[in-house]
Amino acid sequence: MSVESTSVSPARQRNLRRLLAPEHVAVFGGDAAAEAIRQCRRIGFAGQVWPVHPHRTEIEGLRCYRSAAELPEAPDAAFVAVPKEATIGVVADLAARGTGGVVCHASGFAEHGPDGSALQESLVDAAAGMPLIGPNCIGLLNYLDGAALWPDQHGGRRVERGVAVLTQSGNIGQNLTMQRRSLPLAQLITLGNGAVTGAAELVDALLEDPRITAIGLHLEGVDDVAALSRVGLRALRAGIPVVVLKSGSSELGAQANLSHTSSLAGSDVLCDALFRRLGMARVRRVETFVEALKFLHVHGPLAGTRIASASCSGGEAALVADLAERRGLDLPPFPDGTGRQLQRLLGDRVAVANPLDYHTYIWGDLPAQTACFAELLGAGFDAHLLLVDFPREDRCADGPWVTTVDAFLDAHRQVGSPACVVSSLPEGLPEHVGERLLAEGVAPMQGVADCLAAISAAAEIGAAQRRSDATAPLEIPVEVVGEPHQLDERAGKRALSASGVAIPEGALTSADGAPEVAARIGFPVVVKAVSADLAHKTEAGGVRVGLTSGEQVRDAVADMAGLTDAFLVERMVEGAVAELIVGVRRDPQFGLSLTIGAGGVLVELVRDSVTLLLPATREQIADALRDLRIWPLLAGFRGPAADVPAVVDAITAIAEHARGDDALLELDVNPLLATPRGAVAVDVLIRRAKEDG
Amino acid sequence: MSVESTSVSPARQRNLRRLLAPEHVAVFGGDAAAEAIRQCRRIGFAGQVWPVHPHRTEIEGLRCYRSAAELPEAPDAAFVAVPKEATIGVVADLAARGTGGVVCHASGFAEHGPDGSALQESLVDAAAGMPLIGPNCIGLLNYLDGAALWPDQHGGRRVERGVAVLTQSGNIGQNLTMQRRSLPLAQLITLGNGAVTGAAELVDALLEDPRITAIGLHLEGVDDVAALSRVGLRALRAGIPVVVLKSGSSELGAQANLSHTSSLAGSDVLCDALFRRLGMARVRRVETFVEALKFLHVHGPLAGTRIASASCSGGEAALVADLAERRGLDLPPFPDGTGRQLQRLLGDRVAVANPLDYHTYIWGDLPAQTACFAELLGAGFDAHLLLVDFPREDRCADGPWVTTVDAFLDAHRQVGSPACVVSSLPEGLPEHVGERLLAEGVAPMQGVADCLAAISAAAEIGAAQRRSDATAPLEIPVEVVGEPHQLDERAGKRALSASGVAIPEGALTSADGAPEVAARIGFPVVVKAVSADLAHKTEAGGVRVGLTSGEQVRDAVADMAGLTDAFLVERMVEGAVAELIVGVRRDPQFGLSLTIGAGGVLVELVRDSVTLLLPATREQIADALRDLRIWPLLAGFRGPAADVPAVVDAITAIAEHARGDDALLELDVNPLLATPRGAVAVDVLIRRAKEDG
Repeated sequence: MSVESTSVSPARQRNLRRLLAPEHVAVFGGDAAAEAIRQCRRIGFAGQVWPVHPHRTEIEGLRCYRSAAELPEAPDAAFVAVPKEATIGVVADLAARGTGGVVCHASGFAEHGPDGSALQESLVDAAAGMPLIGPNCIGLLNYLDGAALWPDQHGGRRVERGVAVLTQSGNIGQNLTMQRRSLPLAQLITLGNGAVTGAAELVDALLEDPRITAIGLHLEGVDDVAALSRVGLRALRAGIPVVVLKSGSSELGAQANLSHTSSLAGSDVLCDALFRRLGMARVRRVETFVEALKFLHVHGPLAGTRIASASCSGGEAALVADLAERRGLDLPPFPDGTGRQLQRLLGDRVAVANPLDYHTYIWGDLPAQTACFAELLGAGFDAHLLLVDFPREDRCADGPWVTTVDAFLDAHRQVGSPACVVSSLPEGLPEHVGERLLAEGVAPMQGVADCLAAISAAAEIGAAQRRSDATAPLEIPVEVVGEPHQLDERAGKRALSASGVAIPEGALTSADGAPEVAARIGFPVVVKAVSADLAHKTEAGGVRVGLTSGEQVRDAVADMAGLTDAFLVERMVEGAVAELIVGVRRDPQFGLSLTIGAGGVLVELVRDSVTLLLPATREQIADALRDLRIWPLLAGFRGPAADVPAVVDAITAIAEHARGDDALLELDVNPLLATPRGAVAVDVLIRRAKEDG
Repeated sequence: MSVESTSVSPARQRNLRRLLAPEHVAVFGGDAAAEAIRQCRRIGFAGQVWPVHPHRTEIEGLRCYRSAAELPEAPDAAFVAVPKEATIGVVADLAARGTGGVVCHASGFAEHGPDGSALQESLVDAAAGMPLIGPNCIGLLNYLDGAALWPDQHGGRRVERGVAVLTQSGNIGQNLTMQRRSLPLAQLITLGNGAVTGAAELVDALLEDPRITAIGLHLEGVDDVAALSRVGLRALRAGIPVVVLKSGSSELGAQANLSHTSSLAGSDVLCDALFRRLGMARVRRVETFVEALKFLHVHGPLAGTRIASASCSGGEAALVADLAERRGLDLPPFPDGTGRQLQRLLGDRVAVANPLDYHTYIWGDLPAQTACFAELLGAGFDAHLLLVDFPREDRCADGPWVTTVDAFLDAHRQVGSPACVVSSLPEGLPEHVGERLLAEGVAPMQGVADCLAAISAAAEIGAAQRRSDATAPLEIPVEVVGEPHQLDERAGKRALSASGVAIPEGALTSADGAPEVAARIGFPVVVKAVSADLAHKTEAGGVRVGLTSGEQVRDAVADMAGLTDAFLVERMVEGAVAELIVGVRRDPQFGLSLTIGAGGVLVELVRDSVTLLLPATREQIADALRDLRIWPLLAGFRGPAADVPAVVDAITAIAEHARGDDALLELDVNPLLATPRGAVAVDVLIRRAKEDG
């Protein structure tokens, strides 16, 4: 399955690449532009920098041009830090001049109500298809080429390759440049309002740059789900890992997002489903974001979740074991040969196990430590950890610690498997040690829990990569118009039945005919009052189950006489192993989503469900079932197993039915009864948009 | 309710205080002792240091004594770093001399199998009641008095007051001294094997020192539950907060603990119950441990979970909201007056909300920032946060950041409510800024997620303090001897009924009498095969429910003929709102524990249960019920509510029954049916130790 790039034109793509790797930069404005020039110099931009100012003749010792028209040639990149009203004209001039792209610093656009929105529309018109980052953003820091389209100080330095970070928060972006964790930051782009060029288009362009090793997205919402889905799949298949720090998981967090940018937070559950589908690893803390990107920069996605760990402390070994379990990582026993060699090297006083407490008997002994670490790294697991906290250099000597790192690097040169050195406190790994490890291809990790979260993210991305061939691009949601209209249960069931979903044997009847219909179908039966107006029939007394005689059916129908005069008499489904709820919703941003969960009142309290975006494959649906806490029930926990293939077939058919109905708004099968002999949709609710006429 | 101190003698308590705040120190050994002397000097020990060595005449310029007997007087503290065999004699000499206490550095004792255990017994005998820390520990660092009974470098400095940390891991202890987080570490004690003096006795002694503000315990297991429970309650009532980092939550982690110390990991669930009972806040990461102790040092336990937060970034505000929700913290709207004042101060472009994005319009403006922060701090919440990440000082200027901290401190001096400054990346708050904040009573917090975890811990401890009057000391477990013996269901129910627990109306009968008994009791009935040998009667076909006629009863009894000839016929309990499981277990370390959970097969999969140690009050039991995910069912979720007082009464009666039976090993009521009119123990299983004869 091939994945297209974003839907922008090739010319715009070329221009965006000029903006992201410029040979010349024009800066518009006063102090902010001067600062950008200074910052370009600090990080060593090799190209031309052209200040543009209507009145000044020089800025920072460089000759000023009066307008875009006067520039010696069309700049690859322009940093526009003039007042918001003036921004429009400058952008129009730059577009006319054939500029690669611009970064607009001014605020006061869509984030400031209707007047600002109107101004933003003018800005988009002025850009006329030229790539434009912002407005309402700090800027862009390109540490690969040294271009700082950035009006403030920052903490980064030039790198030859590294990670790109896109963020909707200028402050978080600036803070990220100040990290002291040896993260090689290659591009930092603050997105602002994303009026023209959004995250998806930028990721698409960054995927073209072989110097980018991993991409970090700090998002407050997803504006263009289809575009992000296309580019996410492209990244996944290109082997470029993506880590997402998305805020707005809490209601208050979503409000905080809304109040400061114009982005729509969207439903967090659907975002989660999107990220899982695309193999974008979601993290919750800024620290984890940095650590995951650093690990992925060094090692990329991992083949699995099996890790080995060594430290000279049993206390730390126990903490690693606890935290690894919480992250779904495995610490299998060492292979026999490795175990024997470690025992020989470490002596009888050391109990060889994974996680390994290698004690301090060989502390400071380079050959012995090297031999020990070579065994560890040769265990053949997916990642290999050495725990070391360096002492404070201002108060202590670090001799044997350096020896330990020397030994680990020696061993790594011999064996070469995925390895990291991790400190239990983040500050336990000094920056210069981190740089040294990084240069040798060993990930310098800071904080055990964040390190394990990073490894878990790398394994999750690896797993998503391996199944990425089966992941289809998301379909762009269809805009559904028309009044919502609910199908009665009989009509809903017929619709699903036509799509291949099993429903109970049954018939629609009047009150008088009910006992006879029941006798024909065979007892026990269920009698239900049928009416499109009856939303909560169980609560209204419109459902009677387990009726075993014509007399009981007659009584039941009589009791429901006030509700309707149409009744559904169905053969009762017996032998259910589990009750599932299967729902499909249409979201204006995300399109159709499928939720599979445990049904019944109890499970509403424990909220056992998984949500997938559609289309989903049979395998994705089967995986989702296995992720439910009640999965053991389906697999035969203290009783017969359900017919799982039939359950998967039924859910797949429900999803396909929804995809085939452009007017579908909402669909609920509750319950889908899973039995040892099949899966039956026992209650169905469908809401569609009623077409006119 | 008064809480006794530990059960050690007053003389030993006095001696332990001498060891923990010595005026003179004797050091035994060669290089390790010399290093201890250097470390005492580095951190400025004011008292006498006496080296003791059989052959050397001076160490580090100090005159050497040849033995303990030669010392000018009995030392308050002795650091013994001689080989393990020699340690025994030195300790005996020191005990005879009247030493306050010793720290034994040598390893090779109980952690090394049977021979080591024998040696450890000799060591305990040699100490003859004298306090002794270790063996198999690095030592003790007393940063209050400057006594370093410590044979290695470390990162700490003298403090006037601060937190005490006890740890079972020397390495983690040493790493903690290297933190760069302004944590005022007052005492660091590595526990080693705890052969004589364990964590509880040390905490007890530390509670006597008014310079200790909070206590951190890093434990791999709890050796003496009763002692820790007594001292924990004492700390709680004395207002000294305790934070616990306990490893061994995973099976592998528990194994890692066992392989390197002689401590028993115990059941992690019971540890959790113990910590909750004692208001000891449990954390999972070393970083959180440090941050929680730091916050508690400054502010102590909190009155509640309501926080206010300000930053000049909407992105950070959203992250705070998300992470606060995950920690159970609330960000209520500002009081009207505060909101109006903030709006006036910040202008129309700022949307005033909690968490607050105050934007950068007043950035660098000391009076405006001070006024804004004074409003924030005056909101009257339980804690007030300012998010700031300082730039890298080696690459950037920090002028406006310093102004921001100046403003916050000015505001704090005016208002004085619990406040902290928190950086999103831990390294975003430089140590010198942290020291400055600390000196002014503002907590310098590093990492948003860990800061919120620390605040949550402080609120949890505060809540435990407020209910501490009702918390009883744990009873020391009774050693139960005798063969396990299971009561048949009838006997079990009778026993509980005698303790006031409602059971179904019913009678024991032979097969022939069953229909008549059923008719007398009234239908529907349940019939159960009764036999002490029948552990899984449902699986064996020994239970039939919902029988509505004598004929059905006769058939049921006939079907069970192969199982037994005794049958329990009971009136079926109808109208259950929820099924609960109530269990009591006796643990050799923890005594009796009570587990309350949702019953039924589904809930085994979702593991919805709470465990309390006994004795527990009605209120503690009611709180535990409210902590269950199925609590809404009991409270009337889409249906009638249960008779909750009757449920609490029944569980209380079950717990009291267990406490009254010294031979009880295990008790399960499954289910306890909660109905709108009461709670009935429908199935009961009791195992007791059978007494001889």
